[in-house]
Amino acid sequence: MKNEEKPTKPQADERPATVNILFSPDSVGVEVPRGTTILAAARKAGVFINSLCGGDGICGKCRVNVRLGKVRGRPSEFLTRDEIREGYVLACEAHAESDLVVEIPETSRIIGEVREADPTSARFSADGHLPRSAEELKPLVRKHYVELDPPTIENNMADLERLEFALSRASGDSEFQMGLKVIRRLPELLRETGWKVTASTACRGALTEITDVKPGNTARKNLAVAVDLGTTTVVAHLVDLVAGQTIGAAAKYSAQIPYGGDVVRRILYVASEPDGLAEFQDLTARDVCMLIQELQDRYRLGIGDISAVVAAGNTTMMHFLLGLDPNEIRREPYVGVAYSPPPLRAAELGIKIDPRGLVYCLPCISSFVGADIVAGVLATGIHRRENLSMLIDIGTNGEIVIGSREWMMCASASAGPAFEGSESSCGMRATAGAMDHVRLADCENLLSFSTVGDTEPTGICGSGYVDLLAELLRLGIIDRTGRLNTEIDCSRIRVRDDGVAEFVVFRADETGHGKDVFLAQEDIINLLRAKAAIYAASRILMNQLALDYEHIEEIMVAGAFGNYLDIENAVLIGLLPDVPATKIRFVGNTSIAGAKLACLSRERFRQAQEIAGNMTYCELSTDPKFMDEFVSASFFPHTDIERFPSVMARLGK
Amino acid sequence: MKNEEKPTKPQADERPATVNILFSPDSVGVEVPRGTTILAAARKAGVFINSLCGGDGICGKCRVNVRLGKVRGRPSEFLTRDEIREGYVLACEAHAESDLVVEIPETSRIIGEVREADPTSARFSADGHLPRSAEELKPLVRKHYVELDPPTIENNMADLERLEFALSRASGDSEFQMGLKVIRRLPELLRETGWKVTASTACRGALTEITDVKPGNTARKNLAVAVDLGTTTVVAHLVDLVAGQTIGAAAKYSAQIPYGGDVVRRILYVASEPDGLAEFQDLTARDVCMLIQELQDRYRLGIGDISAVVAAGNTTMMHFLLGLDPNEIRREPYVGVAYSPPPLRAAELGIKIDPRGLVYCLPCISSFVGADIVAGVLATGIHRRENLSMLIDIGTNGEIVIGSREWMMCASASAGPAFEGSESSCGMRATAGAMDHVRLADCENLLSFSTVGDTEPTGICGSGYVDLLAELLRLGIIDRTGRLNTEIDCSRIRVRDDGVAEFVVFRADETGHGKDVFLAQEDIINLLRAKAAIYAASRILMNQLALDYEHIEEIMVAGAFGNYLDIENAVLIGLLPDVPATKIRFVGNTSIAGAKLACLSRERFRQAQEIAGNMTYCELSTDPKFMDEFVSASFFPHTDIERFPSVMARLGK
Repeated sequence: MKNEEKPTKPQADERPATVNILFSPDSVGVEVPRGTTILAAARKAGVFINSLCGGDGICGKCRVNVRLGKVRGRPSEFLTRDEIREGYVLACEAHAESDLVVEIPETSRIIGEVREADPTSARFSADGHLPRSAEELKPLVRKHYVELDPPTIENNMADLERLEFALSRASGDSEFQMGLKVIRRLPELLRETGWKVTASTACRGALTEITDVKPGNTARKNLAVAVDLGTTTVVAHLVDLVAGQTIGAAAKYSAQIPYGGDVVRRILYVASEPDGLAEFQDLTARDVCMLIQELQDRYRLGIGDISAVVAAGNTTMMHFLLGLDPNEIRREPYVGVAYSPPPLRAAELGIKIDPRGLVYCLPCISSFVGADIVAGVLATGIHRRENLSMLIDIGTNGEIVIGSREWMMCASASAGPAFEGSESSCGMRATAGAMDHVRLADCENLLSFSTVGDTEPTGICGSGYVDLLAELLRLGIIDRTGRLNTEIDCSRIRVRDDGVAEFVVFRADETGHGKDVFLAQEDIINLLRAKAAIYAASRILMNQLALDYEHIEEIMVAGAFGNYLDIENAVLIGLLPDVPATKIRFVGNTSIAGAKLACLSRERFRQAQEIAGNMTYCELSTDPKFMDEFVSASFFPHTDIERFPSVMARLGK
Repeated sequence: MKNEEKPTKPQADERPATVNILFSPDSVGVEVPRGTTILAAARKAGVFINSLCGGDGICGKCRVNVRLGKVRGRPSEFLTRDEIREGYVLACEAHAESDLVVEIPETSRIIGEVREADPTSARFSADGHLPRSAEELKPLVRKHYVELDPPTIENNMADLERLEFALSRASGDSEFQMGLKVIRRLPELLRETGWKVTASTACRGALTEITDVKPGNTARKNLAVAVDLGTTTVVAHLVDLVAGQTIGAAAKYSAQIPYGGDVVRRILYVASEPDGLAEFQDLTARDVCMLIQELQDRYRLGIGDISAVVAAGNTTMMHFLLGLDPNEIRREPYVGVAYSPPPLRAAELGIKIDPRGLVYCLPCISSFVGADIVAGVLATGIHRRENLSMLIDIGTNGEIVIGSREWMMCASASAGPAFEGSESSCGMRATAGAMDHVRLADCENLLSFSTVGDTEPTGICGSGYVDLLAELLRLGIIDRTGRLNTEIDCSRIRVRDDGVAEFVVFRADETGHGKDVFLAQEDIINLLRAKAAIYAASRILMNQLALDYEHIEEIMVAGAFGNYLDIENAVLIGLLPDVPATKIRFVGNTSIAGAKLACLSRERFRQAQEIAGNMTYCELSTDPKFMDEFVSASFFPHTDIERFPSVMARLGK
């Protein structure tokens, strides 16, 4: 914007057909046709720029600073006059007209980083669910150290059958299968090791695959990685399959965010690009690889120490992981390619663990109720309970399950990533610096707050937003439509040049990055819509089943929150129904918890198939009452406040 | 030999380090280091030269004519003075000293050709055994045409599960598995074909693999190839899996013959060469491919029409097929790498059928009792009989099985390929021109004879040798030690330059190739040894079980004979024990028959595993009595002629 390059050639058509763009601070260059958007160039260069709308110019997340060179594009309402003067543009709308140097600010780079997930955080510590008995601890992949009897004239079994015989005694499995390459290595291996080897086995339904055989005793080290593939966040837990414990966790934003904040935008992208599907398979696999690499480095592991990946995630993300065409997911009648895929060789998916290792996918239920929900049912044990329970999983989509061991029914509503901290001005994941709890004394003064990792605040995560909305509502700073009351005389309330109101939670001098942490009017609207979609979905399901909340023994809330979720505040804003607080429990990330359970127990993996098979799916998009319920719920807590008697009392209505 | 090349450079060390050898009539050239044997050069050039001893200069099978150039090597006793004068050398002993042109005579080229096996021949028509009931006709690989219900909002199964659901109803199978590449193709395929597809499935024990899905209805065409991998002969039958019938057969000599006539020589070769095993895997696969190609061409099939190969053969040949190191097979305690390998992708073995097709191996029992014998038991049904039966399989090895549905025991003896027509002067397989039956009026006059295909004789096959030996013995032309009586005044008896006697069966003007068809003294000794080994093995087994032949209800003779085997003559020469002729039955090639049975019926394939698992193997090489029995049996019919009372009567002893 500020500099024009080589103005010596006046004829437009004589300008070079391609331009070079250098991205800083990555120092990555790329050559693209002149006129390419900076966002497209960044994708080509493998440089991450945040983008929620997938390039439609409507999210304003992809702001970058053009330090050198000329771009073309309409001015964006997302940029202030100062920003425009400083050279900021939206990467999705700025077309390169010359060679460029583009700086990507920290705020537009959030997804590249891999962070250690807070090990004390409730969302990562789901070990309470893990199998404790030796009987139940029968992982999908196992290692058995066996000392074979050397062959004699009397005992002249072949090498393979000798190994299978010993493994059968050690494992209790009976029908084995083995790849030709491993069989071919057997004779030398067995004789060189004095018939003492460790065999890795993997459950393939009724068969057991001997995936590898290695010299000596390596059975004590057997690890797997459980993965929760969210639309916005990818989480990986390193699991010790011998001890049955979680060793560590890592998380990152999905590398697909630049292509769109919701799965439908990504599906549209994939459908529009010739190699879109392969590109997305690769992006998904690379996210998983980055997390695995982080865990390997942190715990000093070799690539061969990790025998399997067990993945849960929504249906579209599972399709991306496997490279399955997701296009029918978004079109009536909304069907995917495969909901219960067989175990697959990790190498075939580009996931770098033991070269012979497998990827197990938990099964999906429908296009919009994925393996994450099956994992959630598995982790919470709804499928084994006598009485009715409800699971509400709040992610980019909100999914609801109601049921017991007799039957189960589920539905899904598009909530958006607001509660995942990804669509709001100062939203962030529940990592260090995220405000996860807050109490206001009055409009001007905070009573208390906390951040993940007890550091200076740098943003707000899901549970922080729930608290903040509840406090603002309680103090009348926002009304029941969500409007910020700018009439209040309070230094925290301000109005931007464009007329939009903001509530400043932390001033620049109180934060870790020296910038304000605030809640803008549009953030409130996003959060209101998210909570409305989730509440509406649960109402529709209840109506279809002719149930009321009193019939439900327990409501479990899972999902993308921080250390905890203030249940009363979640009820106050109408995210959760108004039932006694004792009936509601926050259960953390049940997707990763269920994946870990399946990983550690074949029986649980089998149960996951059963859960998927027995679940009835309720399609909300074709239910004419859904929009009514959604509109009614687009108030704090609800248009019909009679449904929230305790909130009425607290708000003094 | 006759021509010296460029004698202008007297210093030996200035001669070029490599020489070029051109083979005719193939017109294939190869460059090799000077001093390389012609046999080694031919192998390198991919030109077949017959060789039984594997290059030790002791079989004399590899004679070739050096038409141009100079070779070095000691004169061979296998060549007549005339032959040496004409330029004949043994390819294994002649070292190239200059560029050469080498002509390979027809007699040294037998193994390159693929022949249509006589479809009327007993050894290829084992269809009597094949399953007839629809219940039993449940092939290892199947094709199912299914018309799926298109998805609706109410019926929203994913594509994979929709297909599996339909297949489960069509096939009765329940647990499916499918490769990622096929899953990825599903959405487009199903929608383009209007949800009408044919799924190929393959049995993998408790699992069913959906190997491929193709548009429309192709279920009516489902073929497999059953293969008998013999040491000397490879036979393939094309099987219609829908009708449960054999369509055609083809056979060829093994391409491994140049490396040695028996498996131990080949194992030694493989162990001595860096890439020996890969070379042998390739040779084996290529033999199978050549036969499949012949059958494809003959019946105008596409490569995709053949869904599976089911292979039986001896243990070493099965190892070669799979590329498994056979070295421990020949060393005490004689154990192979794998006797019951899992089904393998044909492409992985270099076998060209449907790219997604599988190779199933029937199980082996021990190092020297292979899948061919398991197939034999399966085909003859010994494992289901109430009373004791015996199976004698006469190939390059002779294997004996005794047993019933209660128990089974087996042994193996190295017989050599004499009865397969491969080690004798005029021996040949039971293909057109092979004398398979003969009666002599007296020394001078044939009473009757027949040839396969009713053509002019060109050689003698196994059953022809049995008849010929019996007639010569009956007429006193050979004595009980096998010595040809040269005192008899008969134009058919002649003595070669080297003092070896021969009996001329057909004179050059009576034969199809214008050369004498004769039986040489050394041929008789080979045949005598072969029959002695087989008889001795059966005796040892009987002794170990404390049984006598009267306890055996039926003796079945299988193996490499022609249209038929004259049982009385086989008893006369002591190949078979002297029991009433009604108790002995010639059953043809039961290895291919069993492979076909397994191919057509999963239940039979499962039974094959059971047979291999329940069979007790008796190791003859460590039984001190075996050599005694062998020596005693090295007479016609036996040293102890009391064991052959009917023969005593016929010979007038």
